[in-house]
Amino acid sequence: MTNQGSATAEHRLTLQAKLGESMVLTESADMLRYCRDWHGDVTSGAVAVIRPRSTQEVADAVNLCRTLGLSIVPQGGNTGLVLGGIPDKPDGQVILSLERMNQIRRIDAEDFSAVVEAGCILSEIKDAIMDKGMFFPLALGAQGSCRIGGNVSTNAGGINVLRYGMTRELVLGLEVVLPDGTIYDGLTTLRKDNRGIDLKQLFIGAEGTLGIITAVSLKLTPYPDHVTTALLGLASLEDAIALYRRARRDCCDLMSAFEFMPPLAFTLAKEAMPDLPIPISADYPAYVLMEISGSGLVDIDDLMQRFLEGVMTDELVLDGTIAASQAQARNLWLIREGMNEGQAKRGSHMRSDVSVPLSSLAEFVAEAEMAIAAALPECISISYGHVGDGNVHLNVLPPNDITGQARLDAIYTAKTVLNEVVDRFLGSISAEHGIGRLKRSDFESRLPETHRNLLVAIKRAIDPDLLLNPGCQLSFPPIS
Amino acid sequence: MTNQGSATAEHRLTLQAKLGESMVLTESADMLRYCRDWHGDVTSGAVAVIRPRSTQEVADAVNLCRTLGLSIVPQGGNTGLVLGGIPDKPDGQVILSLERMNQIRRIDAEDFSAVVEAGCILSEIKDAIMDKGMFFPLALGAQGSCRIGGNVSTNAGGINVLRYGMTRELVLGLEVVLPDGTIYDGLTTLRKDNRGIDLKQLFIGAEGTLGIITAVSLKLTPYPDHVTTALLGLASLEDAIALYRRARRDCCDLMSAFEFMPPLAFTLAKEAMPDLPIPISADYPAYVLMEISGSGLVDIDDLMQRFLEGVMTDELVLDGTIAASQAQARNLWLIREGMNEGQAKRGSHMRSDVSVPLSSLAEFVAEAEMAIAAALPECISISYGHVGDGNVHLNVLPPNDITGQARLDAIYTAKTVLNEVVDRFLGSISAEHGIGRLKRSDFESRLPETHRNLLVAIKRAIDPDLLLNPGCQLSFPPIS
Repeated sequence: MTNQGSATAEHRLTLQAKLGESMVLTESADMLRYCRDWHGDVTSGAVAVIRPRSTQEVADAVNLCRTLGLSIVPQGGNTGLVLGGIPDKPDGQVILSLERMNQIRRIDAEDFSAVVEAGCILSEIKDAIMDKGMFFPLALGAQGSCRIGGNVSTNAGGINVLRYGMTRELVLGLEVVLPDGTIYDGLTTLRKDNRGIDLKQLFIGAEGTLGIITAVSLKLTPYPDHVTTALLGLASLEDAIALYRRARRDCCDLMSAFEFMPPLAFTLAKEAMPDLPIPISADYPAYVLMEISGSGLVDIDDLMQRFLEGVMTDELVLDGTIAASQAQARNLWLIREGMNEGQAKRGSHMRSDVSVPLSSLAEFVAEAEMAIAAALPECISISYGHVGDGNVHLNVLPPNDITGQARLDAIYTAKTVLNEVVDRFLGSISAEHGIGRLKRSDFESRLPETHRNLLVAIKRAIDPDLLLNPGCQLSFPPIS
Repeated sequence: MTNQGSATAEHRLTLQAKLGESMVLTESADMLRYCRDWHGDVTSGAVAVIRPRSTQEVADAVNLCRTLGLSIVPQGGNTGLVLGGIPDKPDGQVILSLERMNQIRRIDAEDFSAVVEAGCILSEIKDAIMDKGMFFPLALGAQGSCRIGGNVSTNAGGINVLRYGMTRELVLGLEVVLPDGTIYDGLTTLRKDNRGIDLKQLFIGAEGTLGIITAVSLKLTPYPDHVTTALLGLASLEDAIALYRRARRDCCDLMSAFEFMPPLAFTLAKEAMPDLPIPISADYPAYVLMEISGSGLVDIDDLMQRFLEGVMTDELVLDGTIAASQAQARNLWLIREGMNEGQAKRGSHMRSDVSVPLSSLAEFVAEAEMAIAAALPECISISYGHVGDGNVHLNVLPPNDITGQARLDAIYTAKTVLNEVVDRFLGSISAEHGIGRLKRSDFESRLPETHRNLLVAIKRAIDPDLLLNPGCQLSFPPIS
């Protein structure tokens, strides 16, 4: 299917001739930012980067690449964490960037819906929707750079999942260019439409392996203009989980975030942002950053106040601070973000994104951290994340003086040890980040035969020539 | 693929010999209730009704039927409204009833999840979950008879969709027997698991055409122990929609039902339940039955009170009554149910289940009712339903003295006229009931080629012998 390097120059000329020079980048310097992943861990190459401006141009590019025997790696904002948008190798593959399909086609506040093109940046969509008094709940660290097509293709998660669900639950319809170059127009904004098999579900989470998402209908809610945010100190992760269960009941469907952090989070945040105020003692074994929000007549502040009174009386929460202003709330969230930046500043490390049933989460984290400490006594584990979803990011930081191959070896060992514990707890090795290329072998080696057979059957039914995103999610031919 | 009538007797003997007599019904009298649809409009037949008690027995039955060349119509509680569980013809097809797979495998309140077999009756699941302080939000008229496997296969809707979503959004995992007799075990209870393509989505809404769902993992929420219900009188459907928009904002995510009814609802309810109290004047042009509910610390009663004060001050709501007790709330819901029974008592009629964007709903209903009145001046239209979802059941009742073929003709005309208006408003001919066999031709005639190609490709990839539920959703070979 793919071509060898010597054919690349000819392919570049053909792509530019047929699609127009302005649509096709071929210089290494121009292509670099599309070929390097978000963390900068991997740099690949491509025959070209194709940047269509319309759905028809995407279809034209697909048809041309099929004719030329070039496979296509679709790419949004290139903020993915699992190498789903980076080619395996520089030959035989093009990157198709959706970044120039960035029109908000419409926002219908009266219908609680919007239609946006795949290349729209998430935060820009959210802002435009907010201007109409509405809210699109998807919220994640990369929202200033990620693009909605990528969010949908990867079924992105983030901090508001416990209330609003993954991206899948926020999508009403899709427009997709299929591997045969036809356009699937499923851009409905109907809230309820139950005409049989829901085709859009196939493309959500497929990471561009079954089609190229070009536009999305979004489900909106009223803008939650009342928000209250608290940072709480607790005795343990067990208590944090107990607090989540109680908050889920006491605050009903109005809790919008519940993030767990260990005290190390403050150290790391300070390393990234030395001036960041930490408005709570760093002496507690566990912290929760909790948000309640809503629109209209519900008194959110009173709800938070009464909730905290109850849980502090019961000594489930030992200390806490409620943000008195938006600026204070922003600072609390900066601790969460700074913790991530602080980890990055300590150099490359093992990042994970795992989930287990809520009832075994505390035990899982204890066992995993113990197993990693036994295997890598010089490394530090940090576990934090969206505890209410059973989702924890358990990362492992090697010390500064472990460098080069020794560092890579430590990261590999940490991942192997962690995944073994995840398997024992019947957990997921990817709670929200997807599979891409980074987790493919870990995914495939755990894939039951029945699941694999279904995935292969679907891929072959929709993309029989394996045109789209080769090497992402599944390897062909089968690894076994 | 299928056999002629003469082979039926031999097939029956083989099925009983291989699967055991207790699993296989073959007498017409025994099979009748499986072969007749919920409304009693259609009675079909089958080679046999197979009633397995375990997933392995389902797989055994699938393998045997494939060998015998018998196709399989999966059936849950047989409460579907679109003939998805009734064979096309008595020869060559068996009904596979899941009714004896009725074990609740486990309820994990600590994990907000439950695992139940496909044959569990919805209300029994809800009750068992309630006993653990938890809530499964799916709520529909047939809940005392429908079975969860059917709810998932049809992606059932109901009165709580505006808050909790369709069945699709309430499912964490599935166990499915595939057409090749293998068992897909996707019964995870993880809240968040983003390992690539989400295979369970294929089977939700497929109405048994791709696999036989044998068990389901359910997503639970805390039980909403505070509920307040109000019946409100308004000036028009337009005002009802304006009220919905305001309630969506003012009551945030705590509104759990919002049902629109015209004054005729009271007449029909009284015809079915003469003693039913109607605690509001029947003089308003439009009514809304609204429910707010929640668990924990939110004061639901106060919220309803303040919301109604606001909308009555603004004259959006002209009159209203809040249920003072659970019994009174139950009576308000009986009006909604009695209205359906009253329609049934008036004999066969045109039932619909359509949706359009919320912003065009009022105009759509006006145009559709006008078009039907023009075509069928002697008939009465009644429009009601889940207005917040843009979903309306616009039914047409012929007068008593139209009987026999003339009645069938009127029903056919009403449906044709309605669907033409639905098409003009870019609506759906099935907002929540599915396609089955009843809506297949209306579905297929509106199906864009790209959609059809995808559906056919998926069907052929997973069920290449067309073993499962022939004639449901799609006809093979293609109609064109």
